[in-house]
Amino acid sequence: MKFNTDFDYKERVIQIFEQNHFGKHLHFKFHKIEAGRVSGEMPLINEHLQQDGFAHGGIILAISDLVAGLAAYSITPPPFRVLTAEIKVSHLRPGVGDKLIGYGYVLKRGKNLHFCEAEIFCGTPQKLIAKASTIMAVTKG
Amino acid sequence: MKFNTDFDYKERVIQIFEQNHFGKHLHFKFHKIEAGRVSGEMPLINEHLQQDGFAHGGIILAISDLVAGLAAYSITPPPFRVLTAEIKVSHLRPGVGDKLIGYGYVLKRGKNLHFCEAEIFCGTPQKLIAKASTIMAVTKG
Amino acid sequence: MKFNTDFDYKERVIQIFEQNHFGKHLHFKFHKIEAGRVSGEMPLINEHLQQDGFAHGGIILAISDLVAGLAAYSITPPPFRVLTAEIKVSHLRPGVGDKLIGYGYVLKRGKNLHFCEAEIFCGTPQKLIAKASTIMAVTKG
Amino acid sequence: MKFNTDFDYKERVIQIFEQNHFGKHLHFKFHKIEAGRVSGEMPLINEHLQQDGFAHGGIILAISDLVAGLAAYSITPPPFRVLTAEIKVSHLRPGVGDKLIGYGYVLKRGKNLHFCEAEIFCGTPQKLIAKASTIMAVTKG
Repeated sequence: MKFNTDFDYKERVIQIFEQNHFGKHLHFKFHKIEAGRVSGEMPLINEHLQQDGFAHGGIILAISDLVAGLAAYSITPPPFRVLTAEIKVSHLRPGVGDKLIGYGYVLKRGKNLHFCEAEIFCGTPQKLIAKASTIMAVTKG
Repeated sequence: MKFNTDFDYKERVIQIFEQNHFGKHLHFKFHKIEAGRVSGEMPLINEHLQQDGFAHGGIILAISDLVAGLAAYSITPPPFRVLTAEIKVSHLRPGVGDKLIGYGYVLKRGKNLHFCEAEIFCGTPQKLIAKASTIMAVTKG
Repeated sequence: MKFNTDFDYKERVIQIFEQNHFGKHLHFKFHKIEAGRVSGEMPLINEHLQQDGFAHGGIILAISDLVAGLAAYSITPPPFRVLTAEIKVSHLRPGVGDKLIGYGYVLKRGKNLHFCEAEIFCGTPQKLIAKASTIMAVTKG
Repeated sequence: MKFNTDFDYKERVIQIFEQNHFGKHLHFKFHKIEAGRVSGEMPLINEHLQQDGFAHGGIILAISDLVAGLAAYSITPPPFRVLTAEIKVSHLRPGVGDKLIGYGYVLKRGKNLHFCEAEIFCGTPQKLIAKASTIMAVTKG
């Protein structure tokens, strides 16, 4: 799905990310920023594991929300902002590896709501470990 | 909803939590542990905020998953273990305050699946800021 | 949760329902209409069963969506209208019985979005067979 | 995603559908049956519309559940059966047209749980009006 934007979506996404304490706290790094699609990775450190040594559900939820939200921002010009209204994450496989790779993308752009999804990969070879479906609400900042 | 258990559910929940790097990383502290219901709180520090100064969606997801999962463990004796199969979180209000308070509880216990929910509160006076609905899969460790 | 309304919410809900071909097709009958809470029942006929003789998931989804949507309408005055943006339904138990009883209620009222839930009961004695969580988008008709 | 099966998946899906009163009640017709992927259509009659003349959420939920469940059956040999544990449906656009076309597919096959999705199209030209994400529980019939 391609989206047209009349603003600098790369700068927009990076600017929003710079204001996001939590994303930086997770040491998230961008791979690619497109209009409606953002990808990146974060290291999977010991503090992010649960009792079985897998990536904790919470950390998978966090990167899912992050990349889906940044994808939503890539098609949302100022002064509008984006908030996660709801998100569902399905955990397909346990996450074992040294980093999480996330792809967030917009399924349907709306005036008030964006429908987005995210896919999270982990391990060597990379496997799809989680898939998220979310509604992002557009608000006037 | 009350559940009967024939094992020490408090010890079980605490033991699982002690093995959970991520939960400890969040500085989660228990309020109460019952059979099928677990509550607690975590501080909302600067690293957990997003670009608008609200609690980041990811951190709300993390505590939702944590308390729902611990509630599931409170009715799941060893050698069985619990993994989040899916979770949906609705963000009702922005989270503003110095801590998040979470209640996780079991809606329906099953042999292979537990259906759980979580409610997250924030602020003074406390307001319900998020509600989660999740399926926890029971596995043989 | 109680909600204040400055319009006749009962008339509003009944009027919307009268325009709803699908709800009437299901032979839904109201039990009670309050501001933010609607309940009712529909017969579980042979055409609504799946291959194991249980209520089909689709029919449980239908009544969940119906009562949650009517609850949303009970707090939404004209000219505003309500559309289901997303709904998640958890099937806790197989539905066996001669009717489905549904409770829809508003968890959080918003300007653009209402967060609602629904609980579906079936059998004698009545058991909770499904629980739904939904976002209803408010639109200007 | 391709799946290997050692049973006649087409016969399996058709047999299950023949036992499904609700699916037949909706006048669902198959387009294609593959291992892990099932598509088909149902007419959008007046009884399936809501108060604005759009396809009712309940009917979109019904076909989503139906095609996702049949896709799950296409990779599940007897004596095992499949039940919808939970389903989330996002309504991207209002459904306007004379039929609904549904694609159900398996995202991840498991011993106890299948993760499936469904996409629902409507109108001329066909537009994606809904997307579903679901967990199907495998049970021993």
